[in-house]
Amino acid sequence: MESAMTKKVAITDLAKRAKVSVTTVSQILNGKDDRFSDKTVKRVHELQQEMGYVPDFNAQSLIRRSGRTIGVLVPNINNPFFSHFLRGIESVAMDNGYIPLIFGSNNNQKLESYYLFESIRRAADGMIIASAISDVSYIDNILNQNGIPYLLTDQAPVVAGDTIDANNYQGGQLLAAYLIKKGHQRVAVVTDRQPTLNLKQRLAGFLDTFKQHGFPISAAHVIETELTKLGGYHATEQALVDKPTAIFALNDEIAIGLYRGIHEAGLEIPKDVSIVGYDDIDLTEYIVPNLTTVHQPSFEMGTTAAKLILARIQDKDRAIQNVSLPINLVERESVRDLNFRN
Amino acid sequence: MESAMTKKVAITDLAKRAKVSVTTVSQILNGKDDRFSDKTVKRVHELQQEMGYVPDFNAQSLIRRSGRTIGVLVPNINNPFFSHFLRGIESVAMDNGYIPLIFGSNNNQKLESYYLFESIRRAADGMIIASAISDVSYIDNILNQNGIPYLLTDQAPVVAGDTIDANNYQGGQLLAAYLIKKGHQRVAVVTDRQPTLNLKQRLAGFLDTFKQHGFPISAAHVIETELTKLGGYHATEQALVDKPTAIFALNDEIAIGLYRGIHEAGLEIPKDVSIVGYDDIDLTEYIVPNLTTVHQPSFEMGTTAAKLILARIQDKDRAIQNVSLPINLVERESVRDLNFRN
Repeated sequence: MESAMTKKVAITDLAKRAKVSVTTVSQILNGKDDRFSDKTVKRVHELQQEMGYVPDFNAQSLIRRSGRTIGVLVPNINNPFFSHFLRGIESVAMDNGYIPLIFGSNNNQKLESYYLFESIRRAADGMIIASAISDVSYIDNILNQNGIPYLLTDQAPVVAGDTIDANNYQGGQLLAAYLIKKGHQRVAVVTDRQPTLNLKQRLAGFLDTFKQHGFPISAAHVIETELTKLGGYHATEQALVDKPTAIFALNDEIAIGLYRGIHEAGLEIPKDVSIVGYDDIDLTEYIVPNLTTVHQPSFEMGTTAAKLILARIQDKDRAIQNVSLPINLVERESVRDLNFRN
Repeated sequence: MESAMTKKVAITDLAKRAKVSVTTVSQILNGKDDRFSDKTVKRVHELQQEMGYVPDFNAQSLIRRSGRTIGVLVPNINNPFFSHFLRGIESVAMDNGYIPLIFGSNNNQKLESYYLFESIRRAADGMIIASAISDVSYIDNILNQNGIPYLLTDQAPVVAGDTIDANNYQGGQLLAAYLIKKGHQRVAVVTDRQPTLNLKQRLAGFLDTFKQHGFPISAAHVIETELTKLGGYHATEQALVDKPTAIFALNDEIAIGLYRGIHEAGLEIPKDVSIVGYDDIDLTEYIVPNLTTVHQPSFEMGTTAAKLILARIQDKDRAIQNVSLPINLVERESVRDLNFRN
């Protein structure tokens, strides 16, 4: 059994080397060093570095019942949108002495449950859930009963709670108005098979706007697939069936998959068909032609989520916060202006 | 202070509801349920689900001095190579009741140190370091003194230790031999400004092969940049200065950046210049033309790393393992055959 245990450097080892008491070491390392000589303080800090002494966190967390940890559940760490979102969370967490426990659920319910339980076992102080949780009330029940606050970024909470919203309905409207202005009336949409609330709103804003302009989009032209490059690629054939002049991909990953499918079908973007995406991941500027899309502030969504959950951890009774972040349309080269067609 | 604490469901709450003793609940939840009635066992499990009771992990880990955690440090979670590598680690960790603590260091030394300390504080049982650690002997010192085994995937260990190698020297050779066979003699290389050991070997295999064939590549044609899409994009102008017929990008992300720069320069791949990459990330099949590259088994590298570190945690005295994983060249459409040029 010995070999399976981690043998950490102990505070007693450090005290012995420094020839002072454990209490002295503890006080110096906790910043209460004004009662000791500069020489002693310096010596203790030097030895900490040299010996690699790190205070045992679990002893503290057992007393405080806090792991200074935020559990973060995202659907797909392979999507650049989420890696920027995670970086935003990381930066705020670090500034506050917390660390994010990052989990990619890959839309797998078994993994979701596993990670949820593991976060609680490890005394997570709060959770940020950006994953398409299959059963929100189950999550709500288990987290509430353990007194762990949580934030859902892409779904409606079971009861009133802090929310972040990036104006998805408006984003859908912007793209629809833009396409209509460019003369597009026959369009297809490629969306997720199991859309989260934010995706439903994005789609509704798009469909409502086309309908209001007298160009309703039939259900047959809303194709459901996986929210990935491969999903977009696989959906291409079906999206092209009725020869749309433009296709709205519900996120940029799907758009990149459509680019591949369209290229393989021997068609050209935007000459033969126009494409718009959503998110503004960095790849939109690398693919040819550059993708017209809606910019979401992914990093800022991460920092905001982290700030909200940390504030909620500190004060469970504070007023509920609903933060809305701005989005904007980024016009690039993937949409043809049909008003000037030959 | 009360509000800052997490109020977990306690085993006593569950015992009270189940009308049995705490010992009974504990034994049933630990699988020692053969001495109790089926009805009691069923009731306890049902209440665990309903009440959301999760055994307190920190109490256990304080005794065992183990967080059942593997700290994982990667340079860049935005690179799809690393997201697949992380998924490999995740899958093995989960099968063994561990979780990975995932950190993206972004080649930032301050973040590296922070995460290293936080991993130790949280009683990580082992660490997998795939990041370009600036000072390996510092890491070695601090982890060794805390009795935490670690695995470096892209760098040489300070002392003999478990290693994973994906034949980087051979990968460089394969690409060079392929380009030479296609008639390329004047090539440029775009690599990392602070290359890890694996990148150095990859580059050496490439340069040695060209030299052996009588086409030495001068230092001026080895351009150093960041190992990202943006780094490749920024390096394009310099890479094109002496009109190479082909460019070797040390990873696929750099290659994607070169694609953008070359397109903006009004040149065509592979007609005007050929490109080869390294890693075989999924994007290589989405960009046009599809990228010729070396396939690295990223997921398998993750599972192997996790298996090695778990075995080392279980038995610190086991024989040192050196695992070598196979790679292969994936021929796509980004290299022109100059033997058939008009």
